[in-house]
Amino acid sequence: MSVVRTLRLTLAYDGTDYAGWQRQQNALAIQQVVEEAFAELTDGVPTTIAGAGRTDAGVHALAQVASVHVDFAHSCYGVKHALNTRLPPSIRVTSVDEATPGFHAQFEATGKCYRYRLATAPVQMPFAFRYSWHVPWPLDLAAMHRAATHLVGTHDFASFQASGTPITETVRTMHRVALVTHDDELWLEVEGDGFLRHMVRTIAGTLVEVGSKHRDADSIPAILNARRRDAAGKTAPAKGLTLVSVRYAATR
Amino acid sequence: MSVVRTLRLTLAYDGTDYAGWQRQQNALAIQQVVEEAFAELTDGVPTTIAGAGRTDAGVHALAQVASVHVDFAHSCYGVKHALNTRLPPSIRVTSVDEATPGFHAQFEATGKCYRYRLATAPVQMPFAFRYSWHVPWPLDLAAMHRAATHLVGTHDFASFQASGTPITETVRTMHRVALVTHDDELWLEVEGDGFLRHMVRTIAGTLVEVGSKHRDADSIPAILNARRRDAAGKTAPAKGLTLVSVRYAATR
Repeated sequence: MSVVRTLRLTLAYDGTDYAGWQRQQNALAIQQVVEEAFAELTDGVPTTIAGAGRTDAGVHALAQVASVHVDFAHSCYGVKHALNTRLPPSIRVTSVDEATPGFHAQFEATGKCYRYRLATAPVQMPFAFRYSWHVPWPLDLAAMHRAATHLVGTHDFASFQASGTPITETVRTMHRVALVTHDDELWLEVEGDGFLRHMVRTIAGTLVEVGSKHRDADSIPAILNARRRDAAGKTAPAKGLTLVSVRYAATR
Repeated sequence: MSVVRTLRLTLAYDGTDYAGWQRQQNALAIQQVVEEAFAELTDGVPTTIAGAGRTDAGVHALAQVASVHVDFAHSCYGVKHALNTRLPPSIRVTSVDEATPGFHAQFEATGKCYRYRLATAPVQMPFAFRYSWHVPWPLDLAAMHRAATHLVGTHDFASFQASGTPITETVRTMHRVALVTHDDELWLEVEGDGFLRHMVRTIAGTLVEVGSKHRDADSIPAILNARRRDAAGKTAPAKGLTLVSVRYAATR
């Protein structure tokens, strides 16, 4: 099929009950739910919807971006409305826009922003437990800030990649690694040109170990140099992570 | 048993999966879950925990108050920790305090504050759908504000009480009935000396009908005078309602 139109979808979802974005054989993924809702617009013809980020099971999104090539004439508004009517309330399409034909949400992404929420108060409120990791013990914020600065810039993040991942090109550039206090939570916000599997969660787990005085803030360069997963800290739970936004070159 | 100690518990809960606060025969109520967790502190002896507000099925609480008479020696901190260890994450005890012996959370409450959340943006975010009612059409805010002012003060609220309720003393005093814009939501906040069954939800449903131009803002006095449930608007969905706080005389 020659690509007539490409649509760019922006999606928000609560990942609690899904096996992540990417379609799976034996578990319900968000991609599958969205593609099945989309099939009602194509008279049942299956259509692949490419997501920018392969969020893991339990990970949420405020603005995941996805692309889909179509040959129908429905308006963007009509597509958005039709999808939101069919999708469960835990998955919402927040916008549908006409993209340059051939646009691919994953391959053309130039950056992403993730947020990891730490619930630092003694009691984790019932409205937050699906979206944050409860870390009620005292944290040395100054040490965490110092450790975070070591991660900014271009580094080989092999130590922060899930073990067993076949990716060997593990150099990434982080534009921002910040800890922001938000009400009774501490948010780790990470912006970079690309992310390895479990990378933000491993950064979160490692920074919490620094804040808990189990690691020195200045041990980060040695962790990066080790290029071994066991050099870094534990992987923080998936539920605390949210894909906040995806960046593209201005021309797309 | 002579009352040796009375404890005052403050609880936050996500009411989505519960049949309300009050213990039921055939459905799981929050009171039952809390009392069962409490039984581990009393060697299995059942203890009644009296809640200030009988929140309905699906209604949430930021600070429900409950009282319990005990004869054990556990510290307040120990009680809070033991309960939070046993309770599901959807129910949290945010504080436990020593109260005047004999204190009763329901009978001594002098006022309550409720919040009803309206999600007014075109798309209801997946993180809000358990806690708000999606009202994406245009609302006449000025008319809603005007209608709300008619509800402030001492009135007979029989028209706003769930039909079939046997309560005949239906005069209540509302200290505040306010509409507050909060990000992309509209919050109805109501403070009063007491509330009838479904009263806040019926106020919310009626004000939305005013905002939707299905009722006149100045029809409220006639609705109050009618003292008939069918004079008021529809009951808004339970999930949008949260018990925010309970007030007591300063001496308690």
